[in-house]
Amino acid sequence: MIQEECGVMGAYDFDGKDVATDLYHGLYSIQHRGQESCGIVTNEYVRLNAVKGAGLVNEVFNKENLATLKGNIGVGHVRYGATDINEAVPPIVSRYCKGTMTLAMNGFIKNYDELRIELEQRGAIFQSSSHAEMIMNMIAVARTKTHSAEEAVLTAIKRLEGAYSIVVMSPRKLIAVRDPYGFRPLSVGKRGNRYFFSSETAAFDVIRAERLFDVKPGELIKIDDGGVTHFADAVGKIKPAPCIFEYVYFARPDSYLDDGTSVYRTRVAIGKELYKACPAEADMVVGVPDSGLHFALGYSYASGIPYGVGLVKNSYVGRTFIRDTDEIRYEAVSIKLNALRGAVEGKTIVLVDDSIVRGTTSANLIKLIKDGGAKAVHMRIASPPFLWRCKYGTDIPDREHLIAARMSCEEIRAHVGADSLGYLPVDAFDRAGVKVSEHCTACFTGKYPDEQ
Amino acid sequence: MIQEECGVMGAYDFDGKDVATDLYHGLYSIQHRGQESCGIVTNEYVRLNAVKGAGLVNEVFNKENLATLKGNIGVGHVRYGATDINEAVPPIVSRYCKGTMTLAMNGFIKNYDELRIELEQRGAIFQSSSHAEMIMNMIAVARTKTHSAEEAVLTAIKRLEGAYSIVVMSPRKLIAVRDPYGFRPLSVGKRGNRYFFSSETAAFDVIRAERLFDVKPGELIKIDDGGVTHFADAVGKIKPAPCIFEYVYFARPDSYLDDGTSVYRTRVAIGKELYKACPAEADMVVGVPDSGLHFALGYSYASGIPYGVGLVKNSYVGRTFIRDTDEIRYEAVSIKLNALRGAVEGKTIVLVDDSIVRGTTSANLIKLIKDGGAKAVHMRIASPPFLWRCKYGTDIPDREHLIAARMSCEEIRAHVGADSLGYLPVDAFDRAGVKVSEHCTACFTGKYPDEQ
Amino acid sequence: MIQEECGVMGAYDFDGKDVATDLYHGLYSIQHRGQESCGIVTNEYVRLNAVKGAGLVNEVFNKENLATLKGNIGVGHVRYGATDINEAVPPIVSRYCKGTMTLAMNGFIKNYDELRIELEQRGAIFQSSSHAEMIMNMIAVARTKTHSAEEAVLTAIKRLEGAYSIVVMSPRKLIAVRDPYGFRPLSVGKRGNRYFFSSETAAFDVIRAERLFDVKPGELIKIDDGGVTHFADAVGKIKPAPCIFEYVYFARPDSYLDDGTSVYRTRVAIGKELYKACPAEADMVVGVPDSGLHFALGYSYASGIPYGVGLVKNSYVGRTFIRDTDEIRYEAVSIKLNALRGAVEGKTIVLVDDSIVRGTTSANLIKLIKDGGAKAVHMRIASPPFLWRCKYGTDIPDREHLIAARMSCEEIRAHVGADSLGYLPVDAFDRAGVKVSEHCTACFTGKYPDEQ
Amino acid sequence: MIQEECGVMGAYDFDGKDVATDLYHGLYSIQHRGQESCGIVTNEYVRLNAVKGAGLVNEVFNKENLATLKGNIGVGHVRYGATDINEAVPPIVSRYCKGTMTLAMNGFIKNYDELRIELEQRGAIFQSSSHAEMIMNMIAVARTKTHSAEEAVLTAIKRLEGAYSIVVMSPRKLIAVRDPYGFRPLSVGKRGNRYFFSSETAAFDVIRAERLFDVKPGELIKIDDGGVTHFADAVGKIKPAPCIFEYVYFARPDSYLDDGTSVYRTRVAIGKELYKACPAEADMVVGVPDSGLHFALGYSYASGIPYGVGLVKNSYVGRTFIRDTDEIRYEAVSIKLNALRGAVEGKTIVLVDDSIVRGTTSANLIKLIKDGGAKAVHMRIASPPFLWRCKYGTDIPDREHLIAARMSCEEIRAHVGADSLGYLPVDAFDRAGVKVSEHCTACFTGKYPDEQ
Repeated sequence: MIQEECGVMGAYDFDGKDVATDLYHGLYSIQHRGQESCGIVTNEYVRLNAVKGAGLVNEVFNKENLATLKGNIGVGHVRYGATDINEAVPPIVSRYCKGTMTLAMNGFIKNYDELRIELEQRGAIFQSSSHAEMIMNMIAVARTKTHSAEEAVLTAIKRLEGAYSIVVMSPRKLIAVRDPYGFRPLSVGKRGNRYFFSSETAAFDVIRAERLFDVKPGELIKIDDGGVTHFADAVGKIKPAPCIFEYVYFARPDSYLDDGTSVYRTRVAIGKELYKACPAEADMVVGVPDSGLHFALGYSYASGIPYGVGLVKNSYVGRTFIRDTDEIRYEAVSIKLNALRGAVEGKTIVLVDDSIVRGTTSANLIKLIKDGGAKAVHMRIASPPFLWRCKYGTDIPDREHLIAARMSCEEIRAHVGADSLGYLPVDAFDRAGVKVSEHCTACFTGKYPDEQ
Repeated sequence: MIQEECGVMGAYDFDGKDVATDLYHGLYSIQHRGQESCGIVTNEYVRLNAVKGAGLVNEVFNKENLATLKGNIGVGHVRYGATDINEAVPPIVSRYCKGTMTLAMNGFIKNYDELRIELEQRGAIFQSSSHAEMIMNMIAVARTKTHSAEEAVLTAIKRLEGAYSIVVMSPRKLIAVRDPYGFRPLSVGKRGNRYFFSSETAAFDVIRAERLFDVKPGELIKIDDGGVTHFADAVGKIKPAPCIFEYVYFARPDSYLDDGTSVYRTRVAIGKELYKACPAEADMVVGVPDSGLHFALGYSYASGIPYGVGLVKNSYVGRTFIRDTDEIRYEAVSIKLNALRGAVEGKTIVLVDDSIVRGTTSANLIKLIKDGGAKAVHMRIASPPFLWRCKYGTDIPDREHLIAARMSCEEIRAHVGADSLGYLPVDAFDRAGVKVSEHCTACFTGKYPDEQ
Repeated sequence: MIQEECGVMGAYDFDGKDVATDLYHGLYSIQHRGQESCGIVTNEYVRLNAVKGAGLVNEVFNKENLATLKGNIGVGHVRYGATDINEAVPPIVSRYCKGTMTLAMNGFIKNYDELRIELEQRGAIFQSSSHAEMIMNMIAVARTKTHSAEEAVLTAIKRLEGAYSIVVMSPRKLIAVRDPYGFRPLSVGKRGNRYFFSSETAAFDVIRAERLFDVKPGELIKIDDGGVTHFADAVGKIKPAPCIFEYVYFARPDSYLDDGTSVYRTRVAIGKELYKACPAEADMVVGVPDSGLHFALGYSYASGIPYGVGLVKNSYVGRTFIRDTDEIRYEAVSIKLNALRGAVEGKTIVLVDDSIVRGTTSANLIKLIKDGGAKAVHMRIASPPFLWRCKYGTDIPDREHLIAARMSCEEIRAHVGADSLGYLPVDAFDRAGVKVSEHCTACFTGKYPDEQ
Repeated sequence: MIQEECGVMGAYDFDGKDVATDLYHGLYSIQHRGQESCGIVTNEYVRLNAVKGAGLVNEVFNKENLATLKGNIGVGHVRYGATDINEAVPPIVSRYCKGTMTLAMNGFIKNYDELRIELEQRGAIFQSSSHAEMIMNMIAVARTKTHSAEEAVLTAIKRLEGAYSIVVMSPRKLIAVRDPYGFRPLSVGKRGNRYFFSSETAAFDVIRAERLFDVKPGELIKIDDGGVTHFADAVGKIKPAPCIFEYVYFARPDSYLDDGTSVYRTRVAIGKELYKACPAEADMVVGVPDSGLHFALGYSYASGIPYGVGLVKNSYVGRTFIRDTDEIRYEAVSIKLNALRGAVEGKTIVLVDDSIVRGTTSANLIKLIKDGGAKAVHMRIASPPFLWRCKYGTDIPDREHLIAARMSCEEIRAHVGADSLGYLPVDAFDRAGVKVSEHCTACFTGKYPDEQ
């Protein structure tokens, strides 16, 4: 499974009221972007309060510790990835020449090694391999030469190459900034006198905030008692190229990307294009839960083939283990999903999934459905073949593990056991309303926007 | 939310091989029938091994403790409900005059108090208020007068009134029995030389067992080294009346009830009948996840109104808490579900749910969808109004909490904020293939089968 | 290490005030009698409240759960021993024909098998192998024929053979009873209008209760709103023979046994007798912490040889594990105790311990002290050779593991590496004030009081 | 209670074998120096392995995680004190310009603020308020200008004021250094080809290492594949003044301080001096467990008054809570200690303790003993009145909480309820073999060695 690396949030209340409860409820909405650790840090008149830990939002927070998070400025974080020896769970907090600084980041700094060596040669120490810690050091160095936190942030990020959507909290300011390509999303919401930053706009719904606009690629937004200040073109060299895979898989369907494009509608539109590009004759269109469902709807709408539920998801699995016996080998997927024999028996099925990474899951799913009595399974993939690894902060395997990098489409079809296999052509994104030229499609095309 | 009280499983391997791993994987499939505690007990040449505890299957079992569950006969259990002072998590194990006895039960014994007093007057003690413990005592008393475990079980259950699907393990036998009404389900599956009992047939899929048949109402099935023996009409007074609410809500869609009726197909058929009985003009049919989805499909099929996804479910919520602030009151449902503005905005929606119990959730959902921009919401309920409490082991509130027992349909419509509201008529079940006369519909009709 | 099996407490407040806090603090004082699980059950106007679990008192109880233990009658328990499949942690609670019954017991019923079979043949089931559960069944059977709880208890215990100090709580009474030999201790204390039972009087000190008297061998004491009623000679066949090993090892030094004999003073007196029986010339007397210290004091007082601290105990070890390396083999004892080189270097040491069971610990200790520079170590044991296993509820190994049952004194001396070895003669107990003829000395003499 | 802040260990094996098991067993011996968190970091051919966490040694380590600690160089730590927001449990690990650096420290840097500001002005960030993190930054800055780790350490520590016993691990070296006053102890041990550093020599006993010598005040010792290299007078301005309170309270009795002085023997000698300075007529000398016992022995030896055990310690208390009732107020001390009525009843007692800080504990103890029947209690304190707070890393309260800073000796006597009270005169240390002029006695005299 492909994974996002992080989800971030920020909140600033102009009336001085506590913001942690909103951050807590909001983090639930972006939990899918990071399930291994999470944390909230709040600023209570300069003093910092923090609750952080390994686990899901509902495991780390409880009524008691949430009540300790007083303060009208706050930063929240959900994260993937093993922790370092010193176990610093984000948001990372530090003290430096101008007081405290708290930073949460989604992204990947390509020149991390170079910048870290430069800092080390100045005498810096690193307690983790976190890119956020390195950026904090950059900001701290920049801060020794300026009286303004936002200037220090700007000085630091101008040196960064790669992808970054960052929220920084200083004792009196909340600052958000996005790299000039806008690889990873970051949006702004508002409820009454309270402003929010969030990796996804879906978080605004649960906290009943209004979605305002995105932090633009290359823009820095500062919130302090002077109000909300935009520094457009702050980083320079702006060349918007947000990740197209957010539409395909990462983002929630109820989120809006690119300053207002509905992920749900885009997925339905992609599903329609998928039918046009790879039609099939069948009795039923089935989406792989949960990510394939909206593409399947679109495929059904365009084709007129009835939409059906052919796979049942077990909601209670969570972190589990499987254990084979001498008699049978258990597959994780068969504990999480079961074919709905009552729906698929005797039918020709179009099975729609968002992507194929290694091919193992697809093969297991097709076997499940055929064991459930389906006559034939036509597999349709709502994105082009996955050929290149991501350099911008998502956990996509190396090329050697990408099945599409090793096999032809026909070979993959045979491998997964489908009766036919069709991928979305790259240019279909354009027709579905997502301009290929204005997004990063490197995982499909190998064209890395910052290397062109 | 209405809840089942229990799910049970049993396994017997004629080749003497360990069965715990199958029970473990199978319990995942019936986890929705009981989420507060679970356990497996196995019989290893008379010696019992047990792993039991509070929590979900993936919390109670781990590689180490599963490996200790050696034995070719076994019983598994998932359960709701607070534990007693002595904390006996089922399956309950006891020693009695003929060795050990392990018992798992789904149901509710109506004459529990009477039978318990009778036993107490003989000198019995009770370490919990569990009906299973009482039945064990009944069996033990009966066993003092017979050499056969199945005879003792029969003697005991002939005294029971109410609902029970029971699996009993003695040192050399696995016995399953179902009350003469067959209120709660219990099916038999087989893989190679291994037989299984399960509350739901969906468990057979994950362990790749073939669904054979149901334990019939009033039937006892014994498995021992002499093979599988049926005692049809064992309890007497057979009058099949399985719970119709299993089709509406409890059972998984991929399970089969009543010896072969697909829950999924029945739900789609009910959805179609719902449209016929309560049509609506709308732009989209939306089901409430997860239980409303298949009814919504049927409604869409019958009406031609496009099926859509209008609510997004957050899979990561689990056991959580909500915390209001001065500014807003948080609703649990809005953390678990979000309206898909991209789908519902500007549309007239048919919202399909399985039932309305208290009305609170429906009101919140309709508000969510209207806040998401829907022009109108026509609520359709895939079952008749909920009027009577269940006496057969499901956790349905008292009448005073059932909104339909207190309000007219129009009052409920106004209360939940729908633009129209329609319930499935009782006789529509017949047309959907589920004979009302052959099922328990007491929660809708007040006709309790064993009181007629 | 030899271990007691249990410690029990009871409390009854005539003013209707809550007793759990006293039981909680008191259980700390008898924690040494059972470290694997503990619990308190209170009676709040018929309703029972319970907190029970595996672990030490400070692990099982916390402010929140202690606050739930309302009620003016209560029973507490600390216990050794693996739990059964059904995990019933004592005090065991049951409902029976006359309401609830809670029972805590220290002892061992020799005719357990016979009585259990008898009960099973009546139809009783057993959810554990706990002797307390069997006794509850006996009481319940007796209770069907009498209106008085104490009569039922008496009827039941008259059938018991072996050792038992029992506290039983019924909805309105607290009853304590001790077998006719009084094998295990049980005392009565009082503070204001509140009465207490406890396995050891030391518990009375911490809760500032006055030690009143013992429950006599064969006596039953009932406390209810009619006051405190003694049923002397209730069981019949009284022949007092309390365990002499309580003086040697089990009891706390600050407890009083046999209705007023100080354990501490007895230990000092035994130490003096030990010197008279087995004198030695040495520079220092060292006791093995903690049980050997008071004997060592007595040995020093009688001999004039200075008392010294030669072994340092590490208080922080708790439940631990040791892990050998290729280079050295670690001994658990060397993590718990270290020789005090500064005290023992160059000296001839008398090392006093309470007993030798397997011999391993003694050998390790002598090696530690000699490695610490001692010239010679004369080992002195404050009890006679351990030859027979206990049949009355203490965890003493089988004969084959008792070193004194397999080796001569000289062989043991050589085995443990002492320069000389002396045991207390049996008749020295008499001279130390503990009449051999009035105590159980079976572990030393093989004379089991109830088999004479 | 006064608390040490930390205990540190280091290990280096010249044969390349794993050292973690020795560090693990050794940490048990210095657990009393820090009970809130602990950790071990090992160096396995440049790669670092770490196990760290909140809790005692037996809670943080288990067989599985200990097995992961491969590597022939290692650092261990036990620590007091609340953790920071980022929860960095020591030993702190960092990467810097020359690879990795792991540092464990016992002490307190008086010019911490000044040095940190200096570093911050260079652009450094701080993730905790740990002095160790600041020192790491100092070393990292120094390391940019030298090729030698030990030179960088020396450059850094020459700037430090205050107390520090530090162990630093670089990829190929283990370095230990002690401030020029040698405030906190640090010793060197050896077993075969393996060298150890430890805060206390008692750790060498359990791991069967030979005590070699101390790291001298102001000395740096480097161990690498070139062997063991001493840099005497490395820091300059050497003026030995080790903490005299280590003899009074902190150190284990089986440790050796000042390159070979037995803590035990010193305590006995102090007890003798205490008698000479403050004689008493009494029936028994009783020490407060555990720290008062050895002084009491000395007092007994010098006076001829019999030594006795008058207080019983409850070993099972651990982290606990007390809960008052309406009837009585519980004191923590009475759960941990009980008076031995059998020993003290009717007697005049000399009660010996190491010190009086706030006076509360002493008052409670004297009440316990008098409630136990003692005729009179003469309190003797084995150190001078505690008047000044410590500036060198021990957790001694501010002056306002020190009873001796507020009351005269007579007032204290009345306050604690003693019949007489005597303190050790400062010059008695000299007579007991601990030269006042060569130790830090600031807590008694107010003469801070580095401020003279």
